[in-house]
Amino acid sequence: MRDLVDIGMGRTARRAFGLDEVEIVPSRRTRSSKDVATTWQIDAYRFDIPLVTHPTDAIVSPGTAVAVGELGGLGVLNAEGLWARHENVEDALLRLVTAAEKGAEPAELVRALQQLHAEPIRVELITEAVRKVREAGVTVAARVSPQRAAELTPHLLGAGVEILVVQGTIVSAEHVARDSGQAEPLNLKSFIADLDVPVVAGGVHDYRTAMHLMRTGAAGVIVGYGHCDGVTTTDAALGIGVPMATAIVDAAAARRDYLDETGGRYVHVIADGDVHTSGDIAKSIACGADAVMLGAPLAVAAEAPGQGLYWTSAAAHPSLPRSRVLPVAEDVEVDLRTLLFGPSNDADGLVNLFGALRRSMAKTGYSDLKEFQKVGLTVRS
Amino acid sequence: MRDLVDIGMGRTARRAFGLDEVEIVPSRRTRSSKDVATTWQIDAYRFDIPLVTHPTDAIVSPGTAVAVGELGGLGVLNAEGLWARHENVEDALLRLVTAAEKGAEPAELVRALQQLHAEPIRVELITEAVRKVREAGVTVAARVSPQRAAELTPHLLGAGVEILVVQGTIVSAEHVARDSGQAEPLNLKSFIADLDVPVVAGGVHDYRTAMHLMRTGAAGVIVGYGHCDGVTTTDAALGIGVPMATAIVDAAAARRDYLDETGGRYVHVIADGDVHTSGDIAKSIACGADAVMLGAPLAVAAEAPGQGLYWTSAAAHPSLPRSRVLPVAEDVEVDLRTLLFGPSNDADGLVNLFGALRRSMAKTGYSDLKEFQKVGLTVRS
Amino acid sequence: MRDLVDIGMGRTARRAFGLDEVEIVPSRRTRSSKDVATTWQIDAYRFDIPLVTHPTDAIVSPGTAVAVGELGGLGVLNAEGLWARHENVEDALLRLVTAAEKGAEPAELVRALQQLHAEPIRVELITEAVRKVREAGVTVAARVSPQRAAELTPHLLGAGVEILVVQGTIVSAEHVARDSGQAEPLNLKSFIADLDVPVVAGGVHDYRTAMHLMRTGAAGVIVGYGHCDGVTTTDAALGIGVPMATAIVDAAAARRDYLDETGGRYVHVIADGDVHTSGDIAKSIACGADAVMLGAPLAVAAEAPGQGLYWTSAAAHPSLPRSRVLPVAEDVEVDLRTLLFGPSNDADGLVNLFGALRRSMAKTGYSDLKEFQKVGLTVRS
Amino acid sequence: MRDLVDIGMGRTARRAFGLDEVEIVPSRRTRSSKDVATTWQIDAYRFDIPLVTHPTDAIVSPGTAVAVGELGGLGVLNAEGLWARHENVEDALLRLVTAAEKGAEPAELVRALQQLHAEPIRVELITEAVRKVREAGVTVAARVSPQRAAELTPHLLGAGVEILVVQGTIVSAEHVARDSGQAEPLNLKSFIADLDVPVVAGGVHDYRTAMHLMRTGAAGVIVGYGHCDGVTTTDAALGIGVPMATAIVDAAAARRDYLDETGGRYVHVIADGDVHTSGDIAKSIACGADAVMLGAPLAVAAEAPGQGLYWTSAAAHPSLPRSRVLPVAEDVEVDLRTLLFGPSNDADGLVNLFGALRRSMAKTGYSDLKEFQKVGLTVRS
Repeated sequence: MRDLVDIGMGRTARRAFGLDEVEIVPSRRTRSSKDVATTWQIDAYRFDIPLVTHPTDAIVSPGTAVAVGELGGLGVLNAEGLWARHENVEDALLRLVTAAEKGAEPAELVRALQQLHAEPIRVELITEAVRKVREAGVTVAARVSPQRAAELTPHLLGAGVEILVVQGTIVSAEHVARDSGQAEPLNLKSFIADLDVPVVAGGVHDYRTAMHLMRTGAAGVIVGYGHCDGVTTTDAALGIGVPMATAIVDAAAARRDYLDETGGRYVHVIADGDVHTSGDIAKSIACGADAVMLGAPLAVAAEAPGQGLYWTSAAAHPSLPRSRVLPVAEDVEVDLRTLLFGPSNDADGLVNLFGALRRSMAKTGYSDLKEFQKVGLTVRS
Repeated sequence: MRDLVDIGMGRTARRAFGLDEVEIVPSRRTRSSKDVATTWQIDAYRFDIPLVTHPTDAIVSPGTAVAVGELGGLGVLNAEGLWARHENVEDALLRLVTAAEKGAEPAELVRALQQLHAEPIRVELITEAVRKVREAGVTVAARVSPQRAAELTPHLLGAGVEILVVQGTIVSAEHVARDSGQAEPLNLKSFIADLDVPVVAGGVHDYRTAMHLMRTGAAGVIVGYGHCDGVTTTDAALGIGVPMATAIVDAAAARRDYLDETGGRYVHVIADGDVHTSGDIAKSIACGADAVMLGAPLAVAAEAPGQGLYWTSAAAHPSLPRSRVLPVAEDVEVDLRTLLFGPSNDADGLVNLFGALRRSMAKTGYSDLKEFQKVGLTVRS
Repeated sequence: MRDLVDIGMGRTARRAFGLDEVEIVPSRRTRSSKDVATTWQIDAYRFDIPLVTHPTDAIVSPGTAVAVGELGGLGVLNAEGLWARHENVEDALLRLVTAAEKGAEPAELVRALQQLHAEPIRVELITEAVRKVREAGVTVAARVSPQRAAELTPHLLGAGVEILVVQGTIVSAEHVARDSGQAEPLNLKSFIADLDVPVVAGGVHDYRTAMHLMRTGAAGVIVGYGHCDGVTTTDAALGIGVPMATAIVDAAAARRDYLDETGGRYVHVIADGDVHTSGDIAKSIACGADAVMLGAPLAVAAEAPGQGLYWTSAAAHPSLPRSRVLPVAEDVEVDLRTLLFGPSNDADGLVNLFGALRRSMAKTGYSDLKEFQKVGLTVRS
Repeated sequence: MRDLVDIGMGRTARRAFGLDEVEIVPSRRTRSSKDVATTWQIDAYRFDIPLVTHPTDAIVSPGTAVAVGELGGLGVLNAEGLWARHENVEDALLRLVTAAEKGAEPAELVRALQQLHAEPIRVELITEAVRKVREAGVTVAARVSPQRAAELTPHLLGAGVEILVVQGTIVSAEHVARDSGQAEPLNLKSFIADLDVPVVAGGVHDYRTAMHLMRTGAAGVIVGYGHCDGVTTTDAALGIGVPMATAIVDAAAARRDYLDETGGRYVHVIADGDVHTSGDIAKSIACGADAVMLGAPLAVAAEAPGQGLYWTSAAAHPSLPRSRVLPVAEDVEVDLRTLLFGPSNDADGLVNLFGALRRSMAKTGYSDLKEFQKVGLTVRS
């Protein structure tokens, strides 16, 4: 079932593929992009486009969470980010942006972000942010880390969160604690069982971890950790990485097997990484994702809080940062609506992200996301 | 028959190869390039060289269509391009070229082209352009999109078109229409059956679509969509792409099987993409193409309307452009005849395109195009 | 057992992989990095971290050897380098650094180093250097070449060396001498048998050489020759090279087979090459190494004698230098402790090298180095 | 026996490998480089090092042919190059070098070379050049093209040529002539049979052509056409190319089979291409070559007529040049002796080319070239 390679005597490694190595093959049919549906649904929540935002402060403020919701996607606030720690986030971000404009070294920008995150989380700040999204009437989602999920979740639910995202670089169903002096680790299964809202959890990187996470009762599983070339550096720092095409395919296999195991429980697979262009969104779905978690591609939006900078929350880790703070493509200037739906003057797949997805589905003859997961693929190797 | 790779659990992708990954192997014979024939024939029309122009305004004006015809190839006018929309195309192109020279951003050039294409098609303009080619006595060909084929074709035939090219990024024999409110999609089979002229249709990317298109009665099938690295961006925008070596080989397999199925009907395979040098022309034929559709390599000709710029018509798409408007190699300055037949002072395979093809055939011991389709190949992988 | 490729008629080559081609796959468990042990032990000597320094003067002075020892690793002095040849090494290095700052050509820096190495080895200098390390109370190690091992070792042991490193670019258990006029080559087996201290020997590149070297009685075997892209040039100069992932896996296989053959003698595998980031350290262990020999990654430390330059001792070869003298990353400024244990403001895997190893082990669910050697791997190919 | 890949339906291509993809693996033995022999012999002519010069005017003047001979290699004059066409070659080359120094465009340099080659061949000039080499007492070799071999050879032999090189980009044993109006093509077999001197012929690229060429009676077969990245452009112009590792291995297989077929006739395989460093020389021998034909690596010698420029004779083709005229590495300044035998201050494998070969053989435990052809190889793929 798996394609194994001998990398030396007595040791095999599995061949794995990135989205850049696969391409979609048209089928013998075509259709009009007007005849294509991109809707999907998680629990009772229905969305026009398979878009979940990566919970980084660089793209998600309460305001952009509302805007994404109004445009048919799901915005996810980071409940442990700047909006949870600072009363005046705009000022904090301005300092970061100003430093970048003055040519600060990469390490200085990381340090500045680390310092902004050194402030404690204040429950009243993050619940206030959640309430702002709630008031706008869109679906409300927030992200917590496994470490602080137990502490923060009650407050978030109280403020109106409807979908909870439990997300770390790598999240497993089984966190082993050996040192009895440490805090009890999160038991995801009982945690989810006690909640009334659907939980999306991850990232996972392989079939087995995805399967175990599905068995905890999660409504959705995140594949990947938001990596995009040049920004995240988990591979450089930890040596860990699973190319996204393979990781998505494996999680989709777990979804299928879990569906069979449970006689019908469908857990959504949300791909979080390696997406740079609209073509990569199409490839993620084609590999089996139900939706994509977008980070860097949204940072070019005029409304993005990062104002031309992008980073993931791993950039703020106090002792081992694993994301750079980087400027985004300068020559794309669009509002969020145009970024998602066009029209575009950009020939590089950076604008009209979901119009492009519709067109990709139409040109290959598919009419909905679920069907499109079966489209033919080629691989360069 | 196919080389499949597991890209994850339960999902295979086909290994596919680009022209840059294959190379031609000499055989044990050599011959003189004077003993080599490069002629080919589609229906009653015979050509000295296997050259069809990609129907982009950047290289095909009525004047260059005539020049290409006189030099032994087939020029194809774009019946939906600038010559169909503007009385004074030269002025329109001058504005584009001037903007480029002033250092316009990529998006500005795309927007300028979109605006030029926002003008409506005027039948009297395109038929006048066709007549000019007709008067010169060369074979007359024009390209329509599937969407406007029914509307424009009668006018084009009336003006003297002898070979009709029905071409979109991806064309299938079966365009599915679900929404009854839409216009009836083109039924290629009955459309072709009703015409007296040979039809060349495409692009296709795989065996099955090629086979279905052959069964519509097309005289030729176009493989690919004119992509060349750095210009077209179908992969970035849509995630769609089939490397050309594999796509040509597959279409040639369809040609062989269809020949057998029909007891002798030979449909020509025309390769449209990934050709940057004369070596790529040789490789396209070596993979099984009967002729190549050339775009960017012709843009260096002094006569090219683009005057140093190249783009494909996908650059003008109103909401999702998929081609850049790019400057071509500056240091090559040649007329069309020299570009095709030399002599050359260029060591990079950019000049003497068809003299080089003859030499490639001669050095590997082949005397005509059909034989050369069997030459040995190596692949780097 | 081996993955062989036909590279032509009648000749096979083995597929080999570099560390950059493999990635670590998380397992279904995670744990806290506080629950992870990185200790290892060679003979009676126990170390907190699996770090051995590459014996180049660019990073190891008596002072840094002590510092590395105090931080839990093993510093190895080069007994044939500058500290063995010059009374005032600081002055010598200053000339080199000054030349580099003045923009000397690569060949000039190599020549300068060759000249510094043209001075003879003086036993009193190197024994004095060894004594300085000894006095600090850390484990004392020094490196000799096979050519001079017999001559220098008694002096080194007399000065207090506790672990002897016999290291050349390539060291075999069987050095064939044909010319009777030459000095008797080193017989490693009898040499080691006669010593009371554990010997680490290498580099080796394949299973068979590793196995033979284990049979000489070595306590540890070094895999690789300290190569890192851009610095060492053994491949360019000699055409010799085995990508490190495969070389480490093979040596680990030899360790396993030798353990079985001897009924329990465990020879340590120390990986010396291809390590640029903390992720590469994790990958080296994941491939089967017991420890890593670090060169270039330590050259950014403020204490490094190279003061911003890095080279390996092969740079000083009098007739065929195989290492450049190169500046190291300028924008990292840290002391050795921070380099090894953080905290870090660097997002590129260059700082907090062993904190990152702990985290990599924790996130993939492993609690000690020996277990971590079994973690799952993927390969891009 | 061959590793075939499906590149599409019904079409296979052979996987082929370049020298840059293979690496030499040390064996379990080492020896001293003083115990290594690099001698080889073709017919009655014995050489200290397996070096034949590529017959380009950029590196071979009568003077450098003598120098190479005195240093133990074989210099080959191009009997159809500048020394055959100009009385004062130094002046001609000075014009070229001056144009390059003034920043001439690549096409201008090619045109200048084409013009220098437009002068007719004068027998008295080339025979005079041959005599100069003869007088120095080294082995005399000259290269002719298949087209002019019959005409020029008697004069060359009369002037003292001892080894004749018949060389074109691609040379086959069977040149097919269809057009009766053309000159009779060279029949290599009868041509060689009529000569008293050994003939080296090529280039060939595969087993079958090599075998046929061996059967003509050639004493040596040249594999490749002198290509080196950035200089020759046969692939770009003609689409033709066989990566050298595979091509050499195949020719060595032909040598072995021909040896068996003839009961003992050993035809030498001379590798001509892809050699940039001393490591590539070692790899060429390791793949099965008996000697290497060196071009660009010799162009850095102070004595090289190209004075800092390199090109192959294909640059002078009147209608389809397939070599650039390029500056060589500026920072290497050595005389020919140092280039071949060191000592070196260069860490990039560009100097001490044959000292490095000795060391490569010694470090992997081999004592002569014939044995070294069996050394283990790895491949990256």
